[in-house]
Amino acid sequence: MDRGEASGKPLRNIRLIIQFDGTDFWGWQEQGKGRTVQKTLREAIERLANLPHVTIYSSSRTDSGVHALAMPVNFRIETTLPLKAFVLGLNSMLPKDLQVLRADEMPLEFHARFSAKSKTYVYRILQGPVALPLESRTAWHVRKGLCLEKMNEAAALLLGTHDFSSFRAAECDSLSPVRTLYECSATEEKGIVKIEVKGDGFLRNMVRIIAGTLVEVGTGKKKVEWVKWLLEVRDRRKAGPTAPACGLFLKEVEYGPQWQALSSWPP
Amino acid sequence: MDRGEASGKPLRNIRLIIQFDGTDFWGWQEQGKGRTVQKTLREAIERLANLPHVTIYSSSRTDSGVHALAMPVNFRIETTLPLKAFVLGLNSMLPKDLQVLRADEMPLEFHARFSAKSKTYVYRILQGPVALPLESRTAWHVRKGLCLEKMNEAAALLLGTHDFSSFRAAECDSLSPVRTLYECSATEEKGIVKIEVKGDGFLRNMVRIIAGTLVEVGTGKKKVEWVKWLLEVRDRRKAGPTAPACGLFLKEVEYGPQWQALSSWPP
Repeated sequence: MDRGEASGKPLRNIRLIIQFDGTDFWGWQEQGKGRTVQKTLREAIERLANLPHVTIYSSSRTDSGVHALAMPVNFRIETTLPLKAFVLGLNSMLPKDLQVLRADEMPLEFHARFSAKSKTYVYRILQGPVALPLESRTAWHVRKGLCLEKMNEAAALLLGTHDFSSFRAAECDSLSPVRTLYECSATEEKGIVKIEVKGDGFLRNMVRIIAGTLVEVGTGKKKVEWVKWLLEVRDRRKAGPTAPACGLFLKEVEYGPQWQALSSWPP
Repeated sequence: MDRGEASGKPLRNIRLIIQFDGTDFWGWQEQGKGRTVQKTLREAIERLANLPHVTIYSSSRTDSGVHALAMPVNFRIETTLPLKAFVLGLNSMLPKDLQVLRADEMPLEFHARFSAKSKTYVYRILQGPVALPLESRTAWHVRKGLCLEKMNEAAALLLGTHDFSSFRAAECDSLSPVRTLYECSATEEKGIVKIEVKGDGFLRNMVRIIAGTLVEVGTGKKKVEWVKWLLEVRDRRKAGPTAPACGLFLKEVEYGPQWQALSSWPP
């Protein structure tokens, strides 16, 4: 039986684009009593729609402390609420550090994670003698000088399809360690080095290990060629440290042209 | 008797340039049990120098929630500690949201407030439908569109020497309401409107009332000429609201050429 018919309300698939400051969240995934993005958002949606249980799927299961500039999530729901309510209504109930940027009406088959074509992350590094307070929540502080040219030479070696076993956390549960990177580069502006990485998907902690590894090259502790060797040895213990969560931002998730929104708010 | 001779250590006048995220501070000034910038810094200096009581003077007594990109403070102290210790040593004891950017050895007569020639503040406004979480600690969210041209026309009327009685908090205790503004303008970048104000000094809440007033003009609620009239009526109740503290940053304090540092760290 179609659940939509049972309630007399249409079954819809809503995608929200959310932004959050991850500092005070225990990551995305719901886990008991901890304050997580999923739990905070789910409770607000259930209250808004007056429904007992809504299941939310996200494009990414971000770790504790990681931020999102624009993370897509979706859920199927029987309601006649206008899209505007999923932005303004939810935002009035959500805390300051988690808000909805946009709501889209999607085809019922759309899934925030499985429909994704690629994802873009940014890792921010504050380089200088002092850990600036106004950057402390949103950047990794590195005292040593960084050679951007060497970091970019090393970053270029990671482009394309590789076995990224050296760049995955021990507890990563992905079946395959093979991923494709479309973009990987470092830029600098006003003392902040930004590493931007775009790929078809990412292993657990992959961007943070890439950032930690590129910093080892940038400070001169390791040579550019070391990164090539890391891809070959496929051993996490050989790569650089996992850079702290505070510097990592999910920037964008891209979907194929078949996943157009039927309508959106703001329009 | 010279105190410096009593301890056998030289009496010095140290200027620190500090940065803080004001969100979790009850402003600059020490007041009983509250977590203030002055108290947090004083306790760290007393611990570093192993002295029972140090008096710190700041260029500005910022209110609760106001931030500082670079605020000068000074204190006279009998110690042989190197300047480097006042940066790296203090930073290791200070919390993440308050750090020292630089330490200067100053002439004994220098005073962070009384020697100041001018001060520059920036007020940040996030304009758009959603209060972005990653801007929530550091900008005032305004939903309505802002006309930058009109804001700048109104800002220009405030330039020069005026009686700013309409732009001071009721509890302001300055003897004179006359101040000189050298700069007052609004710019926009990536959805953030920045009002930058430079003057020879500021009355209590003056920059926040200027920001609240310029926003009234920017949204079209008030005409540009209203600001001229506000200077004439000298009545706080007639001006715009006091914009929230979270958007305000002390950017810089300028001193005359007679106040050169004798030495600095970093050099």
